Amino acid sequence: MDNTKEYAWEVVQFNGTEPAVKDDEIASEWPLTIVLNGDEFATMVCSPMDVADLLTGFLAAEGIIRFQDEITSMSVDEYKGFAYITVNTTLDDSRNDHSKRFIGSCCGKSRQFYFKSDAKTAKTVYSRLSISVEQCYKLMEELQQQSEQFMRTGGVHNAALAEPDGLLAVRTDIGRHNALDKIYGHMLRSRISVKNKLIVFSGRLSSEVLLKISKIGAGIVLSKSAPTDLALRLADDLQITVIGFARGSKMNVYTHPNRIVEANM
Amino acid sequence: MDNTKEYAWEVVQFNGTEPAVKDDEIASEWPLTIVLNGDEFATMVCSPMDVADLLTGFLAAEGIIRFQDEITSMSVDEYKGFAYITVNTTLDDSRNDHSKRFIGSCCGKSRQFYFKSDAKTAKTVYSRLSISVEQCYKLMEELQQQSEQFMRTGGVHNAALAEPDGLLAVRTDIGRHNALDKIYGHMLRSRISVKNKLIVFSGRLSSEVLLKISKIGAGIVLSKSAPTDLALRLADDLQITVIGFARGSKMNVYTHPNRIVEANM
Repeated sequence: MDNTKEYAWEVVQFNGTEPAVKDDEIASEWPLTIVLNGDEFATMVCSPMDVADLLTGFLAAEGIIRFQDEITSMSVDEYKGFAYITVNTTLDDSRNDHSKRFIGSCCGKSRQFYFKSDAKTAKTVYSRLSISVEQCYKLMEELQQQSEQFMRTGGVHNAALAEPDGLLAVRTDIGRHNALDKIYGHMLRSRISVKNKLIVFSGRLSSEVLLKISKIGAGIVLSKSAPTDLALRLADDLQITVIGFARGSKMNVYTHPNRIVEANM
Repeated sequence: MDNTKEYAWEVVQFNGTEPAVKDDEIASEWPLTIVLNGDEFATMVCSPMDVADLLTGFLAAEGIIRFQDEITSMSVDEYKGFAYITVNTTLDDSRNDHSKRFIGSCCGKSRQFYFKSDAKTAKTVYSRLSISVEQCYKLMEELQQQSEQFMRTGGVHNAALAEPDGLLAVRTDIGRHNALDKIYGHMLRSRISVKNKLIVFSGRLSSEVLLKISKIGAGIVLSKSAPTDLALRLADDLQITVIGFARGSKMNVYTHPNRIVEANM
C-alpha cells in the first residue's frame, strides 16, 4: 500500500486543443474496514493520514465511545486496510440502532430526522463563545493558507479546531465527514475542551455535518460553503451558530447570530 | 413536508462588518428511507426531485435490479420520507453482501478494493465512443449553464447524460452520488442505451463515483473536479476514460486518452 497523501499519475493535460504529458499529484483514497471487538463494524474510504484521530472521532460520532480511554486497543493493518479496535463499552444497543430512523413526536421541530444513534449523542449547545466578523474572515483565510500544501491535488476537504484568535489544529481528508471526525478524534485524544472554540470547515454544511458539530459541542461552525435547509433547522434547534459562504470579506450568518459581535450592535 | 427544491431562510449577510438581513434560498435536504419488499433497506438524504429516477438508479447501482421492469411497485410517502418498493428479484444474497469487502487474489490490480455487491455489478467498459477536446469544453459549459437555476443555493451537484454534441438529460442533487443515481434511473426508466454516450459531472471523482460510471456502462466521464488515486486505478482497470479539472479551455485526461480525438494525433 502506498500510504502517502498524494500519488503521482501521468496525465494528458490539454490547454485549448494542445496536449502535454505531465506527472500530476492525485489525492490518495484508502479503503479502511473497522473491526470492532472482533466484528466487522464499518468500511470507509479516507485519506491515509491521522488515522488514529479518524478512528477515535468516528467511534465517538457514532456514539460507540464518549472518552478516549474507552478504547482499550487499536491497531491498523495498513497494507490490507483493516483497523482492529477493542472498546470497553457495551456495543449491542448502539449497533442495532445504527441505521434505524428515530421518528418520535416527543422531539423538537427537526429532530424527527435524526437517526436513533444520533438522537442519543446530538446535544443542544449552550456555548457563550462570541466572535467578531473580522476574526471569522481571518480564520477562513488561515484555513486556506494552511491548506495550500494540500491544494495541489484539488481533491480534499479541511476542518480546523479554532479559537477566535487563530486555528489550533487542521485535519484534511478526501471526505468532509472524515475531516471533522479527525478533528473530533484529535480533541478526544489530546483531551482538548471545546469551551470557547469553534469549527472552521471547507465543506458544505449538510445535516450530517451539523450533527457532528453538535456532538463535538461547538457553538459556532464557519464554512466557505453552503448549508442545506435541514442543517439549518437542526442548527436552529440545537442552538448552533451557522456561518456559511465565508469568502474574502463576505459571509452569511444563518442561525443564532447572537454569537457574532457585530450582529448585536 | 416542504417538498420543494429550495427553501427560504432569513440570513444576516455581512459585507465587511456591515450586516444586512435578507431572505436567502437554501438547498433542500430530504431524508428518505427505502423499504424494500417490506424490510427497511437504506436511508439516504437527497434533494426532493426526480425521486423515482433516484430510487430506480440507487437499486440498480446497489445490484438489486438490472432492469426497470424488475420493480413491481413503488410508492413514496413524501410527508414521512418513506419509499415503499417491491422488486421481483431475489434479495437474500445481495443484501448479505451489501457491506462485505471483497478481497480476492483472483481480481485485477485495483479490484481488491471493491465491495462484494460492486464486484458483481462493476464491469469493464468496451465503449468505442470518441470525443474531441472542443466537444468536452462545450459540454461542461452547457452543464454549467443548465445548472444556473440551481446555482442560487450553491449547495448542489449536477450530473448529465450526454452525447458528444450535447447534453441529453441533467439531474441535480445535494449528493454527488444521488445525482448520478438519478441519471442511471432516468436511463433505465426511459430505456436509453448508454451506447455512444458519456457522463458529465460537477463533482469529485472518487472510487464510488467511478464504480457507478462503470455500472452505467459509460466509457467516458467528464468532470470539472479532481479524481482520487483509487478512482484512477479503477478507471484504468475498467477501461473508462477519466477527464477532470475541465474548466474553460483546459482539462486533464487521466486514463485511456485513446477516446480523445486530439490525443491520437
